[in-house]
Amino acid sequence: MTSLRTAAHAGITPSLATGQRCVHDPRLTYALWPPLTAGCPGCSNEQIAYPLEVTYDYAAIDAGMREALFDRTAIPLDVRGWGPLLPPFDARLGPGVGSTPLIDGLEGLGEGVQVLVKDESRNPTWSHKDRLNLMTISAAAASGAPGVVVASSGNHGASAAAMSARLDLPCVVVMSSDGPPLMAHFAGAYGATVLSVRRDARWQVVRDIVDKLGFHPVSNRTVTHTGHPFGPEGYKTIAYELFIQLGHRLPSAVFIPTGYGELLYGVWKGFEELRILDLVDSVPALYACEVAGRGVLKAAIEQDQPAVTIDEASTTDAFSIATTTGGYRATHVMHRTAGSVLGVTDTEMAMSQRTLAAKGIWQELSGVAGVAGLQQTLRRGATFDGPVVCLATSSGLKDVRTGVHQPIETGPDWSSISGELRRRGIPGT
Amino acid sequence: MTSLRTAAHAGITPSLATGQRCVHDPRLTYALWPPLTAGCPGCSNEQIAYPLEVTYDYAAIDAGMREALFDRTAIPLDVRGWGPLLPPFDARLGPGVGSTPLIDGLEGLGEGVQVLVKDESRNPTWSHKDRLNLMTISAAAASGAPGVVVASSGNHGASAAAMSARLDLPCVVVMSSDGPPLMAHFAGAYGATVLSVRRDARWQVVRDIVDKLGFHPVSNRTVTHTGHPFGPEGYKTIAYELFIQLGHRLPSAVFIPTGYGELLYGVWKGFEELRILDLVDSVPALYACEVAGRGVLKAAIEQDQPAVTIDEASTTDAFSIATTTGGYRATHVMHRTAGSVLGVTDTEMAMSQRTLAAKGIWQELSGVAGVAGLQQTLRRGATFDGPVVCLATSSGLKDVRTGVHQPIETGPDWSSISGELRRRGIPGT
Repeated sequence: MTSLRTAAHAGITPSLATGQRCVHDPRLTYALWPPLTAGCPGCSNEQIAYPLEVTYDYAAIDAGMREALFDRTAIPLDVRGWGPLLPPFDARLGPGVGSTPLIDGLEGLGEGVQVLVKDESRNPTWSHKDRLNLMTISAAAASGAPGVVVASSGNHGASAAAMSARLDLPCVVVMSSDGPPLMAHFAGAYGATVLSVRRDARWQVVRDIVDKLGFHPVSNRTVTHTGHPFGPEGYKTIAYELFIQLGHRLPSAVFIPTGYGELLYGVWKGFEELRILDLVDSVPALYACEVAGRGVLKAAIEQDQPAVTIDEASTTDAFSIATTTGGYRATHVMHRTAGSVLGVTDTEMAMSQRTLAAKGIWQELSGVAGVAGLQQTLRRGATFDGPVVCLATSSGLKDVRTGVHQPIETGPDWSSISGELRRRGIPGT
Repeated sequence: MTSLRTAAHAGITPSLATGQRCVHDPRLTYALWPPLTAGCPGCSNEQIAYPLEVTYDYAAIDAGMREALFDRTAIPLDVRGWGPLLPPFDARLGPGVGSTPLIDGLEGLGEGVQVLVKDESRNPTWSHKDRLNLMTISAAAASGAPGVVVASSGNHGASAAAMSARLDLPCVVVMSSDGPPLMAHFAGAYGATVLSVRRDARWQVVRDIVDKLGFHPVSNRTVTHTGHPFGPEGYKTIAYELFIQLGHRLPSAVFIPTGYGELLYGVWKGFEELRILDLVDSVPALYACEVAGRGVLKAAIEQDQPAVTIDEASTTDAFSIATTTGGYRATHVMHRTAGSVLGVTDTEMAMSQRTLAAKGIWQELSGVAGVAGLQQTLRRGATFDGPVVCLATSSGLKDVRTGVHQPIETGPDWSSISGELRRRGIPGT
C-alpha cells in the first residue's frame, strides 16, 4: 500500500506520494527516493534544466478521505492536516507551519474589488518558505544525508537553518557577500554555518559541498532553476487553504510574488489537484509578479523559451525575488493560466507596502509584489468578477532598510510635541 | 441580557463581561464603560496605583457553552473562539491572533523534564502583545476616542500601531530616544506617529496627549503600573489554549517573561477561570522571570510592598521587559501561586536564546526570559512532576544586535571553504 510504504520513515506522516515525474515531459518518471535534486536526468541539457515534481495516487482518495480533507468549515491548525497529498514529512517540523489567516476588509487596496491578503509572515520563520522547507528538510533527513546545503538571499536559508536545527542536521547556508547582513545573522542564529561568498561563486560552492561532503541540496544547482523536487509541494497547501477559507469556492485571481516561480508553481498545482479531485471545475487566473528590473519570466515568455538567464540587471531592494535565473516551472504555469506576468518596480512595491501597512499588515518589500501587481492591473483598468487574493510572503522586519536610523528626539514640552503632532496631521492639534 | 448589552457596539463579539473591579479590593466595582485607564479611583494613592480587571457573568456559562468553549480536541483558529470570556472586541482585529503552537520534543532545554515552548512570535506583529492590544485598541475604538496613545519600548507600541491602523484610528507611539531604532521603525511602518522623547519625559508626554487631545491610553499612566484594565484579559487565552493543547490537563509550571506583570497576571487569571468553571481543581505554579539587574517584582516581594519603583538599574539588552516600575498585578499573582520570582541575567538569556534557536525557535532576548528562568531552577536542582511550559514571547528579528555586522567573505576555492567548514565543526571536512 502506497501510504504504508511512504510512511516507512520513522515519525513521518502517511502520504499518497508515488514517485517523481518530469514537469516538462510527464512520460519521464522516477521512484520517489532519492529526491532528484539536479533536475530531470532524462531531458535536461546544457542550456535548460527541467524540474521534477511529485506524483500521487489520487485514486486512493476515496469519498471519506476527500470529505475529511476538504469538506471542513475551517482550515486545519497547520499543514500536517494535508499529509496524504504531500510528500512524506517529519511531523516534528509541522507545528504552526501554514494555515495563515486570509485577511478581508482591506478597502484601500483596490477600488471596486474584494481584495484578500494571505499573510505568510505568520509562519515559524516569518515567511512562506517554511512550507517549502518542511518538505525539503524532511527529504534531506529521510535520505540519510549528513547535512543540508542551501544557497539563499535570506528567507529560504534561514528557514532551512531552523528546520535543520530542529532535526539536528548540520546546515550550511551559502550567501552572497553583498547580501543583507540581517539575513546572514538570521540564518546564523539557528546555528547554521553561514558562508559569505562572492555572488558569482555561490553555485560552485554549493556543488562542491554536495559533491565532496554528500550534503543534501535544498536550493537550486542546475543551469536554469529546478530546485528541490519536493519543495513546491508544500506550497500547494496555500491553494487548499484558500479553497476552504473562501467557503469552498475559488478566488477569481491570485497575485503571487515571483522569483524562480516555485511558489507560483506550487499554488497552481494545488488548484489543479482540486480540479483533479472534482472539487472545482476550473483554476483561478494566476498573476506572476516579478521585479521589473529583472523580468526573467517575462523574457522567457516573450522569447518563447522554457527559461532564460539574464546577464545585466538593475539594482533592487526586493532581494527575496531578485533572481537573474528563471526556471521552467514558471513558464509551465503561465502557459496554463488566464493570468499574466507583471513586472513591478521598487517604487510600486514601496507604495503597496505603505498601503498595506496602513491596514495593519507590514511586509517585506518582496512580500508585497503581489499587492503591487494587483494595484498595477487596477490602474490599467482591469476588473475581476469575484474576490482577488494577494499572497503576502514575509515580515517587514526583514527589509534591508529596517531600523537603520535613530529617530530625532522631540519635546518633551507640549509646544514641541503638539507642533510635531500637527505636522503629522493628528486631529485636535 | 449581559451578552446583548456588551455586544451593542457594531461588529463586536458577544461577551459575558459585566464590569470592572479593583484587583486589590474586589468590593470596588465599576461599570464596564468607559475603561478606567488611570487605575482604581477608589483606593489608588500617591505612592501606589491599583489596577482594575474585567468581571464576567460566569453563571451564564451553561453546560453547552462550556462544552463548546473547552471540550474540544484542538484550539480554535484564533482568539475569536473565546469571545464570551473576553471583553467585547472588534472581530476585524482577530484574524491570526493567538492560537500559537506549543512545541514539544525540545530535549536539550531541561534534563529529565518535559519542556514545551509556546511560540508567541507567530502573532500578527510577531509578539504576544497582539493578544493584549486586541482588547485595548477595541476598547479605544468602542469608547469613541479620536486616537490612541501608547508609551512603549517596542512590541507593545508596534502592535498598537498595527491594530489602530486596521481600524483607521490615529496612533501616537511615545518612545524613549535611547531605545532601539528598529522598534521606532517598526511602529512607524504602520503609519503611527512615533515621538522620540527623553526617557524620563515619556509619561508626561502620554498624560499630555490624553488630557489635551482625549486620546485613549493603552499603556500605563499611573505612579506604579496599572496599564489598561482590558489588556491582560487577552492573555487569559494563553491559559485556555494550554489547557486544550495539553489534552485538558494543566502544566506543572509555567515560566513567564515578566516586566510589569501583565502577561503573568493574564495567564494566572485564565487558569483561575478554568478553576472557577470547574474544569480543573488547581492552578499551575507560575514563575515570574524578570531582568536580574532590574528586579522590581523581587524587590516588592522582599519589601512586602504592593509595587515598587527603583531609581538605579544596570543596563540590559532585554529591552522589552526592562522596567524600573513595578505593578500590583504581579505581586497579587505571586502571593497566590506556588511559583516564585526569578531574576535572569543577560548572559543567562543569551545562553537560553542560543539553546532554543538550536532547536529551530529564534526569539528576542526578552522572549527567552522564561526559558532562562527554567534553566536556572534546573541548575539549582528543581524537579517538576509534569510538563513544564515556557512562554516565548517575540521574534529574534527584533533584537538590538540583529543584523548589525556584515559577515566576512570566504572562498570561493574549496580549500578556504573546507577550512571554514572544518573550523565550524562540519562533519567530513
